[in-house]
Amino acid sequence: MPVGTRVEYIALQDIRRVEPGEDLAALIGQSLAGMSLELQRGDILVIAQKIVSKSEGRYVRLSDVEPSPAALELAATVGKDPRFLEVVLRESSEVVKTRPNVVIAAHRLGFVMANAGIDQSNIEHREGEERVLLLPKDPDGSAQRLKVALDAAGDLNLGIIINDSFGRPWRNGVVGVAIGAAGIPSLLSQIGVPDMFGRAMRVTEIAIADEIAGAASLLMGQAGQGMPIILVRGLTLDGPVLPAAALARPKSQDMFR
Amino acid sequence: MPVGTRVEYIALQDIRRVEPGEDLAALIGQSLAGMSLELQRGDILVIAQKIVSKSEGRYVRLSDVEPSPAALELAATVGKDPRFLEVVLRESSEVVKTRPNVVIAAHRLGFVMANAGIDQSNIEHREGEERVLLLPKDPDGSAQRLKVALDAAGDLNLGIIINDSFGRPWRNGVVGVAIGAAGIPSLLSQIGVPDMFGRAMRVTEIAIADEIAGAASLLMGQAGQGMPIILVRGLTLDGPVLPAAALARPKSQDMFR
Repeated sequence: MPVGTRVEYIALQDIRRVEPGEDLAALIGQSLAGMSLELQRGDILVIAQKIVSKSEGRYVRLSDVEPSPAALELAATVGKDPRFLEVVLRESSEVVKTRPNVVIAAHRLGFVMANAGIDQSNIEHREGEERVLLLPKDPDGSAQRLKVALDAAGDLNLGIIINDSFGRPWRNGVVGVAIGAAGIPSLLSQIGVPDMFGRAMRVTEIAIADEIAGAASLLMGQAGQGMPIILVRGLTLDGPVLPAAALARPKSQDMFR
Repeated sequence: MPVGTRVEYIALQDIRRVEPGEDLAALIGQSLAGMSLELQRGDILVIAQKIVSKSEGRYVRLSDVEPSPAALELAATVGKDPRFLEVVLRESSEVVKTRPNVVIAAHRLGFVMANAGIDQSNIEHREGEERVLLLPKDPDGSAQRLKVALDAAGDLNLGIIINDSFGRPWRNGVVGVAIGAAGIPSLLSQIGVPDMFGRAMRVTEIAIADEIAGAASLLMGQAGQGMPIILVRGLTLDGPVLPAAALARPKSQDMFR
């Protein structure tokens, strides 16, 4: 059961533009030093997918992409650049739904999202050369590597979440969700926890990493104002550590695919 | 654009069990006084749906419910108490999906949720008398009334969110979402906000109230440990005030209904 009666979300300041090869642990250390903050045991850091992908150089130049017949067919339906759609298809295990100018796809990581999470905003165009940015290759692995690098500073046992903004069926607006995590129970099972009156609860699992990712996303803002890293302090999460992959519902268990 | 580089989520302490007719504004005032806290301008209070419904006496005794033919038919499919399903149908505008022991319905308020949000956990049984708890009749109205009562203490311009925990397609686990809100832009439009490189953003609307509701839900916990009210401090939300009703996507605009 999550404990914490006073939880702080702190946006790290002066995060410079991230380039391929960037050492995010060093970047975080510099920002914290500038804010006279030190990491404490149990702190959680939420990192925007965009800067993780940039640090991993997950760019694709559309001029290098040869659209497949499937991409050309999809382009005829949705009316997007077939080269972009080719990249979407390469990143996806399934196209869930299409509409003019909309492609909802299941990313190979299992997350169902618009354009398989491929980003065309906040990407620099170099001499008109159009690039798109893919999700990190292995967001849980990226989170774990960052955790190991930052934990090294002491007995910190940090939590790391990599978040992105997803649209949802049934509700308007996007919310931040976790696509990668380390050191926390991304999904916390409530099975067997009785309610106040001893009855078994209906709710069985809480998507803890998504709830943290959403609140952090709110501080980050959506237009890349340079606050892509949020420190979360005061939350104590008991329960077995689970990566963000645990949040992806398999198609076989999904009533809505 | 949401602003706030340091945001605190504070769980109010010593909230007694809420009974029908309870004055939630007074309850909040007493808790804050006990914690030596005072409301500040721009504070946001997130209140668990359960205690709002209880204060409004939104109980239904199943022994008073006569199942309709539709409820009996649904019971044959999903295998739940036909009286319970009768209440679900009365609260719903549409049954979206059913499976054994699962009914996903569109509540008349527009929110798509399991059992139309009707709660059988954390409800006292009085001499074996089985009661269920409905959502507040008008959660946005409940939030607005609470805002007016609390704003009266000064020039506070508080935000109020009433939250509940929903499951989601595609992702495991439940997250807190807003079913009622007052004094905040529940949904913030990003239309026209250029990204860092001047391109128009893909993301057009942010479900701000849901992102706050989820983080608050995490502090509340899910088993009713008596922390049903969370104070959110440090968030500055610019944009036109919109109720939580703005978060419910109309069926006509929903690709997934």
